[in-house]
Amino acid sequence: MGSRPTLASLAGQLGVSRQTISNAINAPERVSPPTLERVRELIAASGYRPNNAARQLRTRRSRNLGYRLFPSPDGINTAIMDRFLHALTERLYEHGYRVTVFAVANDDAEIEAYEELLETAELDGFIVADTRQDDPRTSWLMDRGVPFVTFGRPWAADNDSCPHSWVDVDGRVGTAEATHYLLTQGHRRIGFLGWPEGKDLARARPTGYELGRDRKEGWKAALSPHLEPAELELLSVGVPDRIREGAAGALTLHRNGATAIVCASDSLALGASEQLRATFPDKSPAVIGFDDTPVAAAVGMSSISQPVEEVAEKVVEIMRTILDGPANQTKAPQHILLPPRLVLRDGGGPLANPPTP
Amino acid sequence: MGSRPTLASLAGQLGVSRQTISNAINAPERVSPPTLERVRELIAASGYRPNNAARQLRTRRSRNLGYRLFPSPDGINTAIMDRFLHALTERLYEHGYRVTVFAVANDDAEIEAYEELLETAELDGFIVADTRQDDPRTSWLMDRGVPFVTFGRPWAADNDSCPHSWVDVDGRVGTAEATHYLLTQGHRRIGFLGWPEGKDLARARPTGYELGRDRKEGWKAALSPHLEPAELELLSVGVPDRIREGAAGALTLHRNGATAIVCASDSLALGASEQLRATFPDKSPAVIGFDDTPVAAAVGMSSISQPVEEVAEKVVEIMRTILDGPANQTKAPQHILLPPRLVLRDGGGPLANPPTP
Repeated sequence: MGSRPTLASLAGQLGVSRQTISNAINAPERVSPPTLERVRELIAASGYRPNNAARQLRTRRSRNLGYRLFPSPDGINTAIMDRFLHALTERLYEHGYRVTVFAVANDDAEIEAYEELLETAELDGFIVADTRQDDPRTSWLMDRGVPFVTFGRPWAADNDSCPHSWVDVDGRVGTAEATHYLLTQGHRRIGFLGWPEGKDLARARPTGYELGRDRKEGWKAALSPHLEPAELELLSVGVPDRIREGAAGALTLHRNGATAIVCASDSLALGASEQLRATFPDKSPAVIGFDDTPVAAAVGMSSISQPVEEVAEKVVEIMRTILDGPANQTKAPQHILLPPRLVLRDGGGPLANPPTP
Repeated sequence: MGSRPTLASLAGQLGVSRQTISNAINAPERVSPPTLERVRELIAASGYRPNNAARQLRTRRSRNLGYRLFPSPDGINTAIMDRFLHALTERLYEHGYRVTVFAVANDDAEIEAYEELLETAELDGFIVADTRQDDPRTSWLMDRGVPFVTFGRPWAADNDSCPHSWVDVDGRVGTAEATHYLLTQGHRRIGFLGWPEGKDLARARPTGYELGRDRKEGWKAALSPHLEPAELELLSVGVPDRIREGAAGALTLHRNGATAIVCASDSLALGASEQLRATFPDKSPAVIGFDDTPVAAAVGMSSISQPVEEVAEKVVEIMRTILDGPANQTKAPQHILLPPRLVLRDGGGPLANPPTP
């Protein structure tokens, strides 16, 4: 604190309340003109520069960004989004920004929340997660010129011509890498345990189908040189994103001859791995999860890790360019696709030397 | 949306921009007096009542509460605080409140953040977590009359005479119940694997020592009728709150004759349980964790579950009484201590029939 002038010291010098000083900065209409004049003179003379009050006075910014919290059904798969929120909050706070979180049930409610937050909390912009094709949220924000960055691609035919900035993780590369790794270990009949497609998805997962399709595509691309299309078909199962359904899906894949399974989530992978070890203790298929959650680490299961801390860093960099960069700086939309990383552990079934089915 | 007047419809009727209507509500000094007059007349005539804009106009409230996000070193122990944040955000949003999160390194920085958020974001109050004895944050907030509720007791000699409202979970009851349960299963030499006390704590865990002492007290109270003080001493170990240290602490307790271990966290319990099963596959001590995180469920480990959703509900109830209750309503501080619940699973070592050491 030291001898730097503060709201309190200014208030003391003028013999007015701290609230009056604050009002003079943030709500000048609430202060009588003569007092306002005195406060402004003193502020100018004292060199008073509270981090944000002064900045806000100059720019009329709240330095507050909105972010929707998605619900957390089993606490496993959302661990990654909670990690993202922590990283995002930490990086933003270093630059004087806060994050306002809100919990809504669907996209329409999210848009209503945007409108309300822009009106009443005067947020500077939003971080939008879990994007899907033709996302109504990003259209709404673009129509109104509200600054935002998405964690997630637009899933359009050409993601690189997207008019807004996005940062995402290349899930397809992750499942392809996992499948390639299993191929090098001698597996051929590698199953994919993902989410349902089309209309069934809404009941299976609260978010878009694009993420699941992308992860499946990686597995398919890596495996299709080695298997016939009909075999590939048998080796792919889509189930709701829960432990129990993962267990059931894994049994189906095992019946169809899978000696190893790449999963779209750690919830599915955990269910699969536990079920298979219980049912086939001696020759349990290898299981690789997705997201490298604390649960995967705890049970020693291999998993594909998303660099969410790096995503948060990029999102914040882009947001700062939009909000704080000089006016003449190029603010062309940025599109950043980060690779995930395969984390190998030996507790999720034998990665090498597949058992003969 | 229907035919309820909106910012947009009002703007259309008056032939002004939506921003002008918003300014008339939130920043009247930015609107020319004749326009302001017209907007106010129309708002009054139309019955326009946007959720918060109108309320804020009446009460000058932001309907925004602040909450500090603590860092998440291994993603296990903080899972419970992330669950709390989700529940808190969902309950608050139902009542038209948002949560502004910020990440700071220590109490002093948290207080600076309070000051800044009150000034620039005009927050209505704070939810304060991880309280400790003589907590400088609650003193600061009380001195300034800022509304707040803590998740955590004041840890004073008499918590019930505390001048502010708090909601907490009775950790002591949880470890006592776990210890009693192990006693009924035939165990006598039950160890406690907790955190270090005194000065060593700062390096072991970023929060206060009171939580760990409370959890240890429950174990001690339940076990002391059955063992001599010197034996109790041998059966308690304090280590930093990490998986690896939990593994080392468990070996010490096993050397000292423990046939079962109650832990202060799931991180410690996970380390203990894995180490003991690896070292003594045939007669591995039973391990009970704390917080019932997804990791405990995943590995089938028993754990003490905190009702954080109920904590969030109570916190929100109290906050609403403070902020939204009628002025003549009694707003005496409330002190609510909720019991945790022992969740039994059979994957963390034999809970019954202790092996002879």
